[in-house]
Amino acid sequence: MEKVRMGVIGIGNMGSAHAKSIADGIISGMVLSAIADISPERLEWASQNLPKGIALFNDADNLIKSGLVDAIIVSTPHYYHPPLAIKGFENGLHVLIEKPAGVYTMQVRQMNEIAKKSGKVFAMMFNQRTNCIFRKMKEIVSSGELGRIKRTNWIITDWYRSQSYYDSGSWRATWAGEGGGVLLNQCPHNLDLWQWICGMPSKIQAFCHEGKWHDIEVEDDVTAYAEYPNGATGVFVTSTADTPGTNRFEIMLDGGKLVCENNKLMLYKLEMREREFNATYKKGFGQPEFEKIDVETDGENPQHNGVLQNFADAILFDKPLIASGCEGIHGLSISNAMHLSSWLGRAVEMPLNEELFFNELTKKIASSKRKNVVSGEVLNIEGTFGS
Amino acid sequence: MEKVRMGVIGIGNMGSAHAKSIADGIISGMVLSAIADISPERLEWASQNLPKGIALFNDADNLIKSGLVDAIIVSTPHYYHPPLAIKGFENGLHVLIEKPAGVYTMQVRQMNEIAKKSGKVFAMMFNQRTNCIFRKMKEIVSSGELGRIKRTNWIITDWYRSQSYYDSGSWRATWAGEGGGVLLNQCPHNLDLWQWICGMPSKIQAFCHEGKWHDIEVEDDVTAYAEYPNGATGVFVTSTADTPGTNRFEIMLDGGKLVCENNKLMLYKLEMREREFNATYKKGFGQPEFEKIDVETDGENPQHNGVLQNFADAILFDKPLIASGCEGIHGLSISNAMHLSSWLGRAVEMPLNEELFFNELTKKIASSKRKNVVSGEVLNIEGTFGS
Repeated sequence: MEKVRMGVIGIGNMGSAHAKSIADGIISGMVLSAIADISPERLEWASQNLPKGIALFNDADNLIKSGLVDAIIVSTPHYYHPPLAIKGFENGLHVLIEKPAGVYTMQVRQMNEIAKKSGKVFAMMFNQRTNCIFRKMKEIVSSGELGRIKRTNWIITDWYRSQSYYDSGSWRATWAGEGGGVLLNQCPHNLDLWQWICGMPSKIQAFCHEGKWHDIEVEDDVTAYAEYPNGATGVFVTSTADTPGTNRFEIMLDGGKLVCENNKLMLYKLEMREREFNATYKKGFGQPEFEKIDVETDGENPQHNGVLQNFADAILFDKPLIASGCEGIHGLSISNAMHLSSWLGRAVEMPLNEELFFNELTKKIASSKRKNVVSGEVLNIEGTFGS
Repeated sequence: MEKVRMGVIGIGNMGSAHAKSIADGIISGMVLSAIADISPERLEWASQNLPKGIALFNDADNLIKSGLVDAIIVSTPHYYHPPLAIKGFENGLHVLIEKPAGVYTMQVRQMNEIAKKSGKVFAMMFNQRTNCIFRKMKEIVSSGELGRIKRTNWIITDWYRSQSYYDSGSWRATWAGEGGGVLLNQCPHNLDLWQWICGMPSKIQAFCHEGKWHDIEVEDDVTAYAEYPNGATGVFVTSTADTPGTNRFEIMLDGGKLVCENNKLMLYKLEMREREFNATYKKGFGQPEFEKIDVETDGENPQHNGVLQNFADAILFDKPLIASGCEGIHGLSISNAMHLSSWLGRAVEMPLNEELFFNELTKKIASSKRKNVVSGEVLNIEGTFGS
């Protein structure tokens, strides 16, 4: 294979951006071959805005079975990610899916198993993993130079959305259409980075507020408390109603503190680890000396196009993936646990009771009301996924 | 009365600092007349380090009934604050007590009732209320210019203490001696400021970890979630094992955001309030414009001496108090609720069930072990209560 022939399934906000990037030739080794969308308006948009010669399908099945593509990007509403990915693997295609991996982990687990058996490349659009600052945080924590994590704290409230955003799609912000709110739509990146850098929690208690700030069914305000296997604790706060929001990610370790805010990474590095200082210091007040370091990174942050390029390179040259598709289940497990904890009004242990979550989600879906008055507008996402 | 004749009861870390300030003539209208402490070593220290002519008592009762003082400062271990304050009022004295007001609100409520009936001046050593930044935050929030509060978040983990600190007193960090850990000893200031500026929560769920980082009975690591009567939520995180710790206090309001960190106060002021923007904005993505303001304050931060001066001025000239003694119950109610929530493993509603808390505290006290091996050292507090 010289070039990967790509099919994009679902050309809403994200899919149309990906299609354009590929059609514009930005991704080396990748060509746009086909598009599928159930909306005639979107296909009309594709025929007018994308180069000639790209096959247009009003049905994902036909695209997958067309023989025109080697790989697909699934950028449909969340519930369809796993079934379409599975169909792709069953038809010998490589698959890149948009976040979240799915809405519930039972569904995602099945997708992961089929992906593994297929031997095809399976990737997730975790574009935030390409951000130099988060890569650096991961590198520092994983190196062990600062010892064990004691506390994590992410205030990620800069996902502001007004009511008009929620009114732009009938599936948006409904239990039946999207399966969740800020946790499923905006935060998959943050939940993935949180676990990628800090590891998986062993216990979660969350306080999700549904329709608190907007006329929607799902949660738009979340505060969660987490405990980790090593005894560390964590806090995760998000909302789509704070403006200007905050994006401040702090990790306290035995050997120092990392703080990421305003696209800057600060390291407070202790001269003596805290646990050792605690045990050996003999005076009443006092704390270890530390050095404050403005951490340098490689400055690179290729975002979505970086993940697309990596996907092509993985298919063509066996390059390791930035984010394997199978890793999507981790952040989703945290998200599912936050929902479940909030619905039950108690802490939930990890690994998640997936059946219990699915049963509770099913009740939510049964109570879900599809919205009638919607603008149906495709939104310009430029500048919305930022750093 | 020309000058207030002061008696200081308990000259440990804080009391000896107050005694020195008064003896040095720093507080206008206040003279040091008497000292009481049960420890012969402390009285020996007083006779060597304080001016001659100050009466020394080995018993608080005798000081209170001596006729030598018009007012007392109670800076004993926490449990004794209410009974000694009550004895002061019963003997016609004005009373200033160290924080916290007491260990449990039932006891403090009784003290407050007697204080009110006495007609005497009753003040709390909430010295952090004199900090220009916190005063400014209070002023901005209370003015209503930014509308209602939507979220509060205080990461206050810069209360580092090593094991040697805890080993310095037999009463320290025991249920019987102190009645709590970081919430009772370090955080009363923060809990008071939190409620002073943001109001009282209506519901609290806390996760207190006892003896997590130190060989102590009581909590040294706390994460708490709060809900307010208007629907706002909050987070409060504290610990005595984080170093270098964080002190970052954020308040999100309908009209903007206040962030206090590193002795700076930033205001992000929206041009249009968020609730109005949410309802009227017609495009998909977008948020209100804002101005980022480095808030100027009067720069004054007189701390303990400011409260002492205010106490003298209240007695001599009827000046309003910075912190009435009766307000000490608010932060303590939050602290008690955090403990109770954690012990019960569930959220607790406010106002607190005081009897339930007292019963649970009594169980803790019954299990408490007095420490035998302690240094008994009086610690130099200089620089430990900072900004």
